[in-house]
Amino acid sequence: MIDKSTIDDAYALIKPYIRKTPVMDVSAADILGNRNQNNRINFKLELFQHAGCFKPRGAFYSLLSQATLPKAVAAASGGNHGAAVAYAAQKLNVKANIFVPKAAPKAKVDRIKDFGAKVLLDGDNYAAALANCEQHIADTGAFSIHAYDDISTITGQATVALEWLEQVKDLDTVLIAVGGGGLISGMAAYIKQVTDIKIVAIEPANSASMYHAMANNTPVTVTPTSIASDSLGASLCGTNCFAIAKQYVDEFICIEDEDILQAQTSLWNNYRILAELGGSAAFAALASGKYETSENEKIGVLICGGNTQFLS
Amino acid sequence: MIDKSTIDDAYALIKPYIRKTPVMDVSAADILGNRNQNNRINFKLELFQHAGCFKPRGAFYSLLSQATLPKAVAAASGGNHGAAVAYAAQKLNVKANIFVPKAAPKAKVDRIKDFGAKVLLDGDNYAAALANCEQHIADTGAFSIHAYDDISTITGQATVALEWLEQVKDLDTVLIAVGGGGLISGMAAYIKQVTDIKIVAIEPANSASMYHAMANNTPVTVTPTSIASDSLGASLCGTNCFAIAKQYVDEFICIEDEDILQAQTSLWNNYRILAELGGSAAFAALASGKYETSENEKIGVLICGGNTQFLS
Repeated sequence: MIDKSTIDDAYALIKPYIRKTPVMDVSAADILGNRNQNNRINFKLELFQHAGCFKPRGAFYSLLSQATLPKAVAAASGGNHGAAVAYAAQKLNVKANIFVPKAAPKAKVDRIKDFGAKVLLDGDNYAAALANCEQHIADTGAFSIHAYDDISTITGQATVALEWLEQVKDLDTVLIAVGGGGLISGMAAYIKQVTDIKIVAIEPANSASMYHAMANNTPVTVTPTSIASDSLGASLCGTNCFAIAKQYVDEFICIEDEDILQAQTSLWNNYRILAELGGSAAFAALASGKYETSENEKIGVLICGGNTQFLS
Repeated sequence: MIDKSTIDDAYALIKPYIRKTPVMDVSAADILGNRNQNNRINFKLELFQHAGCFKPRGAFYSLLSQATLPKAVAAASGGNHGAAVAYAAQKLNVKANIFVPKAAPKAKVDRIKDFGAKVLLDGDNYAAALANCEQHIADTGAFSIHAYDDISTITGQATVALEWLEQVKDLDTVLIAVGGGGLISGMAAYIKQVTDIKIVAIEPANSASMYHAMANNTPVTVTPTSIASDSLGASLCGTNCFAIAKQYVDEFICIEDEDILQAQTSLWNNYRILAELGGSAAFAALASGKYETSENEKIGVLICGGNTQFLS
């Protein structure tokens, strides 16, 4: 659905604007105790990306892949997508209007403002903010970037996989957290065109839009209640994301909130990595044993975001 | 004073026990504003080392380089050195007694205990804890590891430079924070035997044992009062450290506590890296402009520790 060559071109286009985030091999003994100590583990530290998560990749590609750069962009989000669109727009001198639900945390709202965007704090919930955003787009012709289901968004996020496979040559498996599905579908599309690496989707059991979409063979509405819902809490898996993930993703695993909390603490205690809860979810699947490893398997763990409240 | 080949051998010896910490290129535009945007910057993220800082390298080498592995080791420290010795001893099945001043933060004491060491919480200050430790060593014959001035400690810390130069080929300059001087002297000894990279020592003005040693041409006692004294607060630069640094280090810069606080916040806001105050000092010299960059200079910044209180 998205050609490898399109993703290669996307990477070339956005490369001047994004950080090549580091990878680190770590020992299974640190975290798995006596269980499968001969596993090899590699972290992809995408939480160090601009704006604190992978999402600027999709935002930059969505803007830069237009025939002419839009004059203004609009998005509805009180979280990582809003910050990423604001960041990309600022760097490209595009005006950004970000529609944020009234209840959004002040720290996240301030971050969007720090990136130079106009914040429209209105709407009692996300749906209301989205309706306001869509009205604004209809009224003004502003360019819209969907948080996960636009093909351009998915293509931009796919570059995480391209970069990772350039950095690490011997991965057997990758574990990727899922919200609406933009990241995993893009990465899966790239990975499966070049390797047979196993791709595993990780979701909180109580915020599992893709897991339930697969079970029902079509996206179905869920009510996200996970503690990681601020970044993984999509109520509906994207249609494009669903189709791509259905084709390419090998395994779908649900974890508990308690697994995520323990993983966040473990990342800090063992590695001095402070990931947000959603960014800790892929690691949680490994550390909790919910993802069962095989002998000598080399497992890539994507730490996808770091936007916790600390200091910001 | 320490041959390159000795450092090469040390790295081979400790490699199975340490993490190869990642590096990351970052854009000068993120932090330098309109000042020298054509600088290139590379972070060496040594805060992700076991026990949260570079010090296990020296501790492992000190133990592993003995003709026979000691049965027991002792150290005086309520901070990073104590945790590093405890960690290395645990992994090598050596008994560790760590002498800690009564006022040490509970979080750090707990961390030393978590690594399986016996904590002797006695002595009203560091000097008293050190005296207790020395008495213990005299009584029991336990192996002693100095926090910075043993040649074996310095040799172990030197492996940070070896690893960094393998990872990044085009550094012009490295900025390194200084406490007692073990890290910078080891790194400088390695670097100057293989390249002409400029080496810059960074100290808090109010905790600057090496700066004042250089000014007086001999180590002199200072009273560390910097907010970063928990990791950089040596009252006396090591004698070996002084001699090596005098030979190899090119520039000595003092920064203010305010620079360090701002740098710690900037590392978090821009990169989602949560360094301890001492680990933020090298970056502080760059971000504050106290280290003046040249056109097109590529500057390596060592983020050497992450042992803040958060979550642990």
